[in-house]
Amino acid sequence: MSSTFGRILRLTTFGESHGKAIGGILDGYPAGIPIDMDRIQAEMDRRRPGSTSLGTSRNEKDEAEILSGVYNGMSTGTPIAFMIRNTSQISSHYSEIEHLFRPGHADYAFQRKYGIRDPRGGGRSSGRETAARVFGGALAKEILRRDGIVIGAGAIEVAGIRATGYGWNPPFPPPLYAPECPELQDMIKAIEDARADSDSVGGVIECRAQGVPAGLGDPVFDKLDALLAHAMLSIGAVKAIEFGAGFAAARMKGSENNDQMEARDGKAAFLSNNAGGILGGISTGSEIVFRVAVKPTPSIAKEQRTITDSYEDTVVSIHGRHDPSIVPRAVSVVEAMAALTITDALLARRCYER
Amino acid sequence: MSSTFGRILRLTTFGESHGKAIGGILDGYPAGIPIDMDRIQAEMDRRRPGSTSLGTSRNEKDEAEILSGVYNGMSTGTPIAFMIRNTSQISSHYSEIEHLFRPGHADYAFQRKYGIRDPRGGGRSSGRETAARVFGGALAKEILRRDGIVIGAGAIEVAGIRATGYGWNPPFPPPLYAPECPELQDMIKAIEDARADSDSVGGVIECRAQGVPAGLGDPVFDKLDALLAHAMLSIGAVKAIEFGAGFAAARMKGSENNDQMEARDGKAAFLSNNAGGILGGISTGSEIVFRVAVKPTPSIAKEQRTITDSYEDTVVSIHGRHDPSIVPRAVSVVEAMAALTITDALLARRCYER
Amino acid sequence: MSSTFGRILRLTTFGESHGKAIGGILDGYPAGIPIDMDRIQAEMDRRRPGSTSLGTSRNEKDEAEILSGVYNGMSTGTPIAFMIRNTSQISSHYSEIEHLFRPGHADYAFQRKYGIRDPRGGGRSSGRETAARVFGGALAKEILRRDGIVIGAGAIEVAGIRATGYGWNPPFPPPLYAPECPELQDMIKAIEDARADSDSVGGVIECRAQGVPAGLGDPVFDKLDALLAHAMLSIGAVKAIEFGAGFAAARMKGSENNDQMEARDGKAAFLSNNAGGILGGISTGSEIVFRVAVKPTPSIAKEQRTITDSYEDTVVSIHGRHDPSIVPRAVSVVEAMAALTITDALLARRCYER
Amino acid sequence: MSSTFGRILRLTTFGESHGKAIGGILDGYPAGIPIDMDRIQAEMDRRRPGSTSLGTSRNEKDEAEILSGVYNGMSTGTPIAFMIRNTSQISSHYSEIEHLFRPGHADYAFQRKYGIRDPRGGGRSSGRETAARVFGGALAKEILRRDGIVIGAGAIEVAGIRATGYGWNPPFPPPLYAPECPELQDMIKAIEDARADSDSVGGVIECRAQGVPAGLGDPVFDKLDALLAHAMLSIGAVKAIEFGAGFAAARMKGSENNDQMEARDGKAAFLSNNAGGILGGISTGSEIVFRVAVKPTPSIAKEQRTITDSYEDTVVSIHGRHDPSIVPRAVSVVEAMAALTITDALLARRCYER
Repeated sequence: MSSTFGRILRLTTFGESHGKAIGGILDGYPAGIPIDMDRIQAEMDRRRPGSTSLGTSRNEKDEAEILSGVYNGMSTGTPIAFMIRNTSQISSHYSEIEHLFRPGHADYAFQRKYGIRDPRGGGRSSGRETAARVFGGALAKEILRRDGIVIGAGAIEVAGIRATGYGWNPPFPPPLYAPECPELQDMIKAIEDARADSDSVGGVIECRAQGVPAGLGDPVFDKLDALLAHAMLSIGAVKAIEFGAGFAAARMKGSENNDQMEARDGKAAFLSNNAGGILGGISTGSEIVFRVAVKPTPSIAKEQRTITDSYEDTVVSIHGRHDPSIVPRAVSVVEAMAALTITDALLARRCYER
Repeated sequence: MSSTFGRILRLTTFGESHGKAIGGILDGYPAGIPIDMDRIQAEMDRRRPGSTSLGTSRNEKDEAEILSGVYNGMSTGTPIAFMIRNTSQISSHYSEIEHLFRPGHADYAFQRKYGIRDPRGGGRSSGRETAARVFGGALAKEILRRDGIVIGAGAIEVAGIRATGYGWNPPFPPPLYAPECPELQDMIKAIEDARADSDSVGGVIECRAQGVPAGLGDPVFDKLDALLAHAMLSIGAVKAIEFGAGFAAARMKGSENNDQMEARDGKAAFLSNNAGGILGGISTGSEIVFRVAVKPTPSIAKEQRTITDSYEDTVVSIHGRHDPSIVPRAVSVVEAMAALTITDALLARRCYER
Repeated sequence: MSSTFGRILRLTTFGESHGKAIGGILDGYPAGIPIDMDRIQAEMDRRRPGSTSLGTSRNEKDEAEILSGVYNGMSTGTPIAFMIRNTSQISSHYSEIEHLFRPGHADYAFQRKYGIRDPRGGGRSSGRETAARVFGGALAKEILRRDGIVIGAGAIEVAGIRATGYGWNPPFPPPLYAPECPELQDMIKAIEDARADSDSVGGVIECRAQGVPAGLGDPVFDKLDALLAHAMLSIGAVKAIEFGAGFAAARMKGSENNDQMEARDGKAAFLSNNAGGILGGISTGSEIVFRVAVKPTPSIAKEQRTITDSYEDTVVSIHGRHDPSIVPRAVSVVEAMAALTITDALLARRCYER
Repeated sequence: MSSTFGRILRLTTFGESHGKAIGGILDGYPAGIPIDMDRIQAEMDRRRPGSTSLGTSRNEKDEAEILSGVYNGMSTGTPIAFMIRNTSQISSHYSEIEHLFRPGHADYAFQRKYGIRDPRGGGRSSGRETAARVFGGALAKEILRRDGIVIGAGAIEVAGIRATGYGWNPPFPPPLYAPECPELQDMIKAIEDARADSDSVGGVIECRAQGVPAGLGDPVFDKLDALLAHAMLSIGAVKAIEFGAGFAAARMKGSENNDQMEARDGKAAFLSNNAGGILGGISTGSEIVFRVAVKPTPSIAKEQRTITDSYEDTVVSIHGRHDPSIVPRAVSVVEAMAALTITDALLARRCYER
């Protein structure tokens, strides 16, 4: 529960934004997988502060150290522990907000839950925690690659500007990590404008998993889409998810929404993909497609009404080096959580294969 | 995993649509709760086939029998097993589709996963399975009631017709289980038209939890919204979920989306509720609000292209007594899964209360 | 937790001794296994009341009904629910003990935990609950059989009389379910004497798993011996377990206790089996051997001091149709729990096989 | 599973004997508990190599660094990660055994499970892993202390020499960590003799938990004794466990073994404790008492027959700085695992308290 994700492949994370380190333990990782640290670090680099001109001006290297589970460059089947030292925090930025609750943040709810919190940089609720997810996801991708499964995500909407007519050839490049489209420069400019205006903007990230075999996921509570929804909504800034046609499916007729089939190579070939590659909770062999809504960064310099931890009214303007949009850096987190979820389903299935 | 939902309060379900019975075991239910079978049956009646003029013409009583865990009308803390005998199945309806995969259903994915399936009425993937969820949810509500928590859901969109200006006073009445609104008759008519046209329609269900205290849910992987998303996407017909402003939040600026606060009675009073009552995965004490997209019923009489289980092309028209829209009967399922999720979080929190 | 056992293959049980029924749900059972109800009922018959002349005079048929998960005589991969109606209870036997706590029983601890209990026949803590385990174990054995794994248990000590020089050819026959040995008749007589004396006796059951491949179990917390110990101590009457040489190993020198090896057919052949077939928590390919201590039946007609549920001193003589020794009927329960544990480890391993 | 122990309070450990570090994450730890690092280090010191004259001559400081979850000396409710750098390994000692399987060790089983292993010092199967358990147990004790629960363990048998007439006043002093008794010097001498003889000896450790309230543990699969047995058998060198009278109970009559009761202060006072403080899997309020058998250290310098990892016969004499008996240093590990188990049951119970 809580700080652990997954059933067979289980990622347990730790760490506060301004504590000594963040990291995690990836347990249930199969033995004998070569671990390519360059490829893993490349994934980390997409998420790290400073990776995109559209993000925070903080520059952290986010170099992960593996503490166990790898011997002579190969996984051994034992838990892989990893750690990233926190190096670039300026806690003084937080002294002025130590005794108030920032709007749009977990501060108030956290205080009510635990009665105590580490107020520096959001503590455990900081987006910094997602670095451990990206590391875990990078390791999961090493398994998926061997099975020919490719997970890719990209920004397809920023500040209400929606990409049109885009192709799909991930990984997508910085600064926005979006597919090539006519609206790309406008989307980038919307983020720059938000920064200039001391405000922030949100957006939509699309994720696709290609090469997923039919048969992953369980028919009742652990449907593959339920597991993916769990994974995505566990990312702090994500407020919604839709699979395939999603909310649009609610406005279709059955005759429009059903994906009809024809036989091809002893399998079903679907003539459309409104289902997003999952039916009854089980992958169909079609591309898995879903989109998540990312809210605008809550940390903004504009003045907002809030309360102190003595429960008195006040106002706050949040300064510091914040991302004017979480969308670009969240792309790698979405990919990582999708990779962990699908790898887990892949390993789980092996228990039942005949 | 799989057929079990929850961490402290765990519902394990069983049963195929046309097998002997469906039912479940609710484990982790506290001792000493009076069990009001009339109230539970009333919940079952909202979901049961024949409960609404907008649904299937099948008429099943869905009377649940409690087999254990209740003594002299009180829960004893031991697992509560319950069972509903299947009585109204006409399996012959399924002989013609036994050897093909119905579009929009789990048939093909299920076959690819297990290599075997009970083809009668969808088997384990049938919506009939949700009767066990409604039973479990009804028991969960008995706990929530004692804590002053009320879960209500209602249809707010059918076939693209969206309710406007509605109040919130659940439970909502049949046939649509929707709040009173100017569009109500049009929504009902859309379902009747779909039935007349041998087609089906989808819609959107909104769910609200009132009276939930601040502090439920965990800050990382088991965020309350992640658990609710898991719960909702585990309902077969649900293809999307959004919390609070949801996808609209992705188009807002931070200054618009953040819910500002003022102090009231030693707590935070939020001046808006774009977050849907959850921040950083933890309940804030505001009303929890989310909406799910329900796809149109896949079983339609219109002819569709598909394949046989020998992987040859064919066409199919699905006859039988199907719901022209799943929306009305899904309302009680959404409520039940929300009740189970929030009760579980409530019990989990007690482990940590100081 | 609580009423669920296993990780991949999960048995959840329900039922009180004098409630409507007992039973369970076996989830995670692979698809495509033929289910031989005669073989399963034969396992049930070994445990059922009335199966042995050394046990209770109650005679219950314990016929299990499968409610789901089996179609055309084959498992389908969906949860297998089963139920055994309670038919032979005489609750009036319990009216005189309804308001006191029986020595050696869970009554007092249960009341302190839940504040409420079903006092008829021990309620949830009754040995009757183990019928559901035997059913689950019988289904597990169907999987093990296909992998050439045989689980057998037998009584090897009763009332301090220890079997010597016995061979191993399970299943062993009633009334004692013990291997042929010189002490067999004395062991049987000890139970008959206990019955005549209004008292009861305990004993030791040995269990062996033959044909278990090397590599089952995990190296740290879920060692195969830890999982088996968990399984065995979850049987109400079991108070101790030892693997291989067990407590005797504590008195050996390393040079005596270590099982030396030689190569045979590309595997290790161990020259002794003090480890009981498990090293570092992982099966070695040797026979798995353990023994459990079964305490004497706590329900005895001899007068004992105890207290009422108003916390006043009293005395009690427990009448009714009780087993003078739990040992004979516990043999099948030990086998069942061993079968469930080893099958779970076998399925779990498949996730990691290369 | 695997590297995680516990349900509410969950310890996940990592690390190989000769890797960079060992450590773990303790999740589910309540907020607001003062963390006394001196007391925690004192627990670590009892287990660390070099702590006792009866153990290895390796001298490791085993200083644990907390990486997260503690702020201003208080737990925050977030996962507590900790790490102990490995500093004193001499891997060259292992070059000569890299390609063979040591008798009595996990080497062979591990190789058969994973097909790969880190041969240095036992890798993941090394007793060094238990340092993380002692750290977790020390944190658990901080919770137990606030509830007046004291866990103590001590050596009561070495090489067949059994302590008699001992009192119980833990923690017990080095070098043996045994209660004061007439046999103490003989027990110590037996270990010294084993070292002189290039051999090793085992023993028995008794553990008692005092002040445990009635009502901990669950009535079926998660009996408190089942959880404790799981915990103890997960310690590499432990081969057996018995609760209360244990194997002796199997030789008693019911009238001897049952613990009769009288009323005292509105509770039951038990007139004996053959049950070891647990009935039907639930704590009774009596002292919890169990004993575990510790096998002799498998690493001995005497020559033994074994095989290489090319499956050829060979002989081996294991040199290096090994403990002639695991018993002294295992005392703190037994205590730690008991503390984790009982704290978990204590927290779990809070979910159900009325």
